[in-house]
Amino acid sequence: MAAKLIDGTAIAEAIQAEIAAEIVQLKAQYGLTPGLATVLVGNNHASQTYVRMKQRRCKKIGLHSIAPTLPADATQTQVEAVIHELNVDPAIHGILVQLPLPGHLDEEKILSQVSLAKDIDGFHPINIGKLAMKHRIPSFEPCTPAGIIELLDRTGIEIEGKEAVVLGRSNIVGLPVSMLLLKRNATVTICHSQTQNLPAVTRRADILIAAVGRTEMVKADWVKPGAVVIDVGSNSVDDPTAKRGYRLVGDVDFKAVKEVAGWITPSPGGVGPMTIAMLLKNTLLSAKRTAGILQ
Amino acid sequence: MAAKLIDGTAIAEAIQAEIAAEIVQLKAQYGLTPGLATVLVGNNHASQTYVRMKQRRCKKIGLHSIAPTLPADATQTQVEAVIHELNVDPAIHGILVQLPLPGHLDEEKILSQVSLAKDIDGFHPINIGKLAMKHRIPSFEPCTPAGIIELLDRTGIEIEGKEAVVLGRSNIVGLPVSMLLLKRNATVTICHSQTQNLPAVTRRADILIAAVGRTEMVKADWVKPGAVVIDVGSNSVDDPTAKRGYRLVGDVDFKAVKEVAGWITPSPGGVGPMTIAMLLKNTLLSAKRTAGILQ
Repeated sequence: MAAKLIDGTAIAEAIQAEIAAEIVQLKAQYGLTPGLATVLVGNNHASQTYVRMKQRRCKKIGLHSIAPTLPADATQTQVEAVIHELNVDPAIHGILVQLPLPGHLDEEKILSQVSLAKDIDGFHPINIGKLAMKHRIPSFEPCTPAGIIELLDRTGIEIEGKEAVVLGRSNIVGLPVSMLLLKRNATVTICHSQTQNLPAVTRRADILIAAVGRTEMVKADWVKPGAVVIDVGSNSVDDPTAKRGYRLVGDVDFKAVKEVAGWITPSPGGVGPMTIAMLLKNTLLSAKRTAGILQ
Repeated sequence: MAAKLIDGTAIAEAIQAEIAAEIVQLKAQYGLTPGLATVLVGNNHASQTYVRMKQRRCKKIGLHSIAPTLPADATQTQVEAVIHELNVDPAIHGILVQLPLPGHLDEEKILSQVSLAKDIDGFHPINIGKLAMKHRIPSFEPCTPAGIIELLDRTGIEIEGKEAVVLGRSNIVGLPVSMLLLKRNATVTICHSQTQNLPAVTRRADILIAAVGRTEMVKADWVKPGAVVIDVGSNSVDDPTAKRGYRLVGDVDFKAVKEVAGWITPSPGGVGPMTIAMLLKNTLLSAKRTAGILQ
């Protein structure tokens, strides 16, 4: 194996230990416990799992958490009412609306109801606007994209002046991570399903971010030797030998690409754990602002 | 000369003729005259010239226009008060704050005071957020970037699947035009002062947008033969033979690049006239929404 491994699980644990220590101090000094609310609408199994994982992690590091849950047929008004309550709840410093929402709801409108001060997911249109603009600072950066940058930083990988290629342009990962890489002075190329000669484009990358949700799409000859490869994909693949009947696989053909890349994240165990770590970090940040410790 | 010329002046005139015809109809049918307010703070000569140009153009096509002017030392409160008045003025359908503002003013806050319904410049953070995001539609698209897309469309240049390289990442041009090109399914690369091997990056472009404000920076060997070159630059260069002592020059070395490119805009006479045309178009669009003709 040529590539060195970027161990997201270990880096996320280090961050969570830092956060837990800060929470202890915050409680002792200000009597304040950071609180996270995860709003879940409907019965999407993956969403239920994510929410449970977040709650478990909150408990582990001493963060207060609640998970208001609405039925799949909840009305727009009902969901917005929950958001409005949380906006004024002094025990809650961060509000996360678990996506995707059921199709009959207006996602954009619901996300824009979250108070900017509690938008720890960074998905309020104003925060995305500030993320995109030069010299503007969003109140929070979206968690998965911020987790990717943190992985690079904590691994000592330089971003400035590098060619970054982002595969995928979703609102949740591809677009915002492109904006963060640009703010860090990378030369950024955004690719997608309409891109021609995709392997030739990804081969230019010093830093390649794969966020398309296609099982092992990125092959060895898509990667420049020595490049940094970050795999955001988490795709379930049937596997009768696995206990649950499936296993999770990334967007990158890990076995082949690790022979070419300089650095690589596994998936699972790479970006995934960082998303929750950054969510907790943003909630702590919000609580510190409330306490007047930070702007 | 290998390249065909993209005549921004002619295309802008065609658009303005279309707008003028629509205004006649709007007046006849609804008794409504679209109105534009250009807010000018201070004595910046270039800004004064731009505002005068806009007003002249408005008059020519039958658009109502006013240009509230504040002194260079106007306070934040004074500027915001003017915006608030215009927000509720039924004769005004579009509000443009002429940038740059004097340094003591909070530009971000002032732009965010403009009613979304009258943000014909598209610079409200919410509109920039929507511009950046997939499946979101800003109430208005920023004028210069929208003008660039219109130039490509009216010249019959396909955008989808093409490699677009944007040189510059300003909030006014580089960033938003990148987002528009992405929405139109180009593969987009954003370059800037920290980009390494710039000529090699720009040579990949099927569509090259130069928006850096550096006189004739883009040379012939920066351009792939047959590429479309859009020059957003407008730099003044001393010229004792010119009546005003200077002449305006683009970011592209026009003489040399036109021998290589497939299509090229002159500067002046390319993107410049389109900016005003799109401003008028957005003001008309806003008035039509007021009249209930459009959403």
